[in-house]
Amino acid sequence: MSGISYKGAGVDAAAADRWLEGLRAKLPAIGGFAALFPLADALKGLEDPALVSCVDGVGTKVLVARAANNFSTVGQDCVAMVLNDMVCCGARPLFFLDYLAVAKFDEAQADQLIEGLRLACDACGCALVGGETAELPGLLAPGEFDICGFAVGIVDRKRALPRADLRAGDLVIGLPSSGVHSNGLSLARRALPEYATDAELRRELLTPTRLYVRPVLEALAKHDIKAIAHITGGGLPGNLCRVLPPDVDAQLFSGNWPVPTIFHRIAEAGGIARPEMFETFNMGLGLCLVAPPDAAPALAESLAGEGARIVGQLEPGTGKVKVDELVFA
Amino acid sequence: MSGISYKGAGVDAAAADRWLEGLRAKLPAIGGFAALFPLADALKGLEDPALVSCVDGVGTKVLVARAANNFSTVGQDCVAMVLNDMVCCGARPLFFLDYLAVAKFDEAQADQLIEGLRLACDACGCALVGGETAELPGLLAPGEFDICGFAVGIVDRKRALPRADLRAGDLVIGLPSSGVHSNGLSLARRALPEYATDAELRRELLTPTRLYVRPVLEALAKHDIKAIAHITGGGLPGNLCRVLPPDVDAQLFSGNWPVPTIFHRIAEAGGIARPEMFETFNMGLGLCLVAPPDAAPALAESLAGEGARIVGQLEPGTGKVKVDELVFA
Repeated sequence: MSGISYKGAGVDAAAADRWLEGLRAKLPAIGGFAALFPLADALKGLEDPALVSCVDGVGTKVLVARAANNFSTVGQDCVAMVLNDMVCCGARPLFFLDYLAVAKFDEAQADQLIEGLRLACDACGCALVGGETAELPGLLAPGEFDICGFAVGIVDRKRALPRADLRAGDLVIGLPSSGVHSNGLSLARRALPEYATDAELRRELLTPTRLYVRPVLEALAKHDIKAIAHITGGGLPGNLCRVLPPDVDAQLFSGNWPVPTIFHRIAEAGGIARPEMFETFNMGLGLCLVAPPDAAPALAESLAGEGARIVGQLEPGTGKVKVDELVFA
Repeated sequence: MSGISYKGAGVDAAAADRWLEGLRAKLPAIGGFAALFPLADALKGLEDPALVSCVDGVGTKVLVARAANNFSTVGQDCVAMVLNDMVCCGARPLFFLDYLAVAKFDEAQADQLIEGLRLACDACGCALVGGETAELPGLLAPGEFDICGFAVGIVDRKRALPRADLRAGDLVIGLPSSGVHSNGLSLARRALPEYATDAELRRELLTPTRLYVRPVLEALAKHDIKAIAHITGGGLPGNLCRVLPPDVDAQLFSGNWPVPTIFHRIAEAGGIARPEMFETFNMGLGLCLVAPPDAAPALAESLAGEGARIVGQLEPGTGKVKVDELVFA
């Protein structure tokens, strides 16, 4: 039997190592066995600091990126999925790490992905400090990849969200999404199989998930905000309900915000019922904030540049989310 | 066209949600949008605290687990890959999150994986605070899965490793591995394709990666340790060299530690040359510690219960690792 090598077994460690050396030159915060993040500055002014950690991936949006052979948007999706969750706790992001699983290391693909991560982290004031690229021949097929991210932020515990005092009369302010974001892609792909050949549809589906971190952190510093919900898998019902106390419902009025046309197209092509659409997709609202009625107008005004609108209100109930006449248990 | 649903598209969010509710009951530290970890206790006694973050997966060991239909060992592998890296910085782990990618959520599989994570985190004094389970139909085939983990630890910066004062005469102490750990599995599977049918071989390959965190943290508190290297992908040359200053080499003597028989079997079956074996596998040493000559004997003695041995020494050089007569550039 002739000898085999690790490279012959599908893993080219040297190629990945060379790429990593180049990356280290661009991202000096990247560590060796681990990344070190000094805490002193981050602790300043905090009475009872707590770390907030989040992890998420971008789901089967990676399959759309692969069909488009365009990996430049997925990095922002990955950062947005993680850091938009983090800001729901009122936390300021400190640092981010990624995990990239590939069949075989592809430098051009990795470069596009990491550049997307880097730009999105910069836009959120978050340091990209490290990551892992795993070659998994035999698990992933050539060209396939998966990516996820992990971030740590910091918050003063007495200012952590959601607060417990949400009550009837509080208003819900919605921030528009940029489209499907990174959830429901399995259903969207099923409904619109032509994405495989339709470049314009792929471009629309690949619109990166909006980053809400900076505007929301600015709003948190100036306004009375009781809770924030990132609208991801499960849609408005599955995510807004996470911040509701058991004695109120959230009543939303879909006429108060524009539902992007992509959602109508998915619903029509797939024959998908309206409740299923709301339970799967963000339907045009990527983030919801809950504020008391006396603070909500100024908050909405300060976020007007982000497209904020008052989209509903809390009312006596049992922790449910309602959209128009639809009631989600 | 009849309507399709998210469940029909391969994603059963409700099944995963029900499982998550059960998990929350078992792991109260798990958060909503994010996990909160209070810092006050962890900061006590530290002059200049820094956070240390690590991310890693278990590579294609998941394929062996799948062939064995046994997912109980992979959780420890995942925790060990991450936390053994972390302890190389001299850091104490605080919390851990996992990311599990599956084709379709399988409660029995997820239970085995999470239980493995939980037990291994407990063994390292680390809190399992959250995670993400992603269903990726169309990317992964039915039954396939990938797992990775992220952890955050804390260290006083002035005690962070590696130190810069490694010099000729320092001794290298090795801690035995439990076998292949979680690296080189692509090569091992190629060399030993009979793993697909040989249950005993699968059991041997699935031996969980050793957890070095507790004994090493205890040793750090009592002994003078200059550097620690976790021997993962790249083997002794690829990992020990990461802590060497540019003016010394590490000379190891393989007669000083037992090389487990699995490595001889892989080398023989695959016709794999000795250098390639050392550059791919841990070859019996899972962790190496570097200590000054006056401290090394007591350190080795204190870790005797872990099987510690003095396996080599530093000598004037250029940052290379040598094993017997083999020189790795």
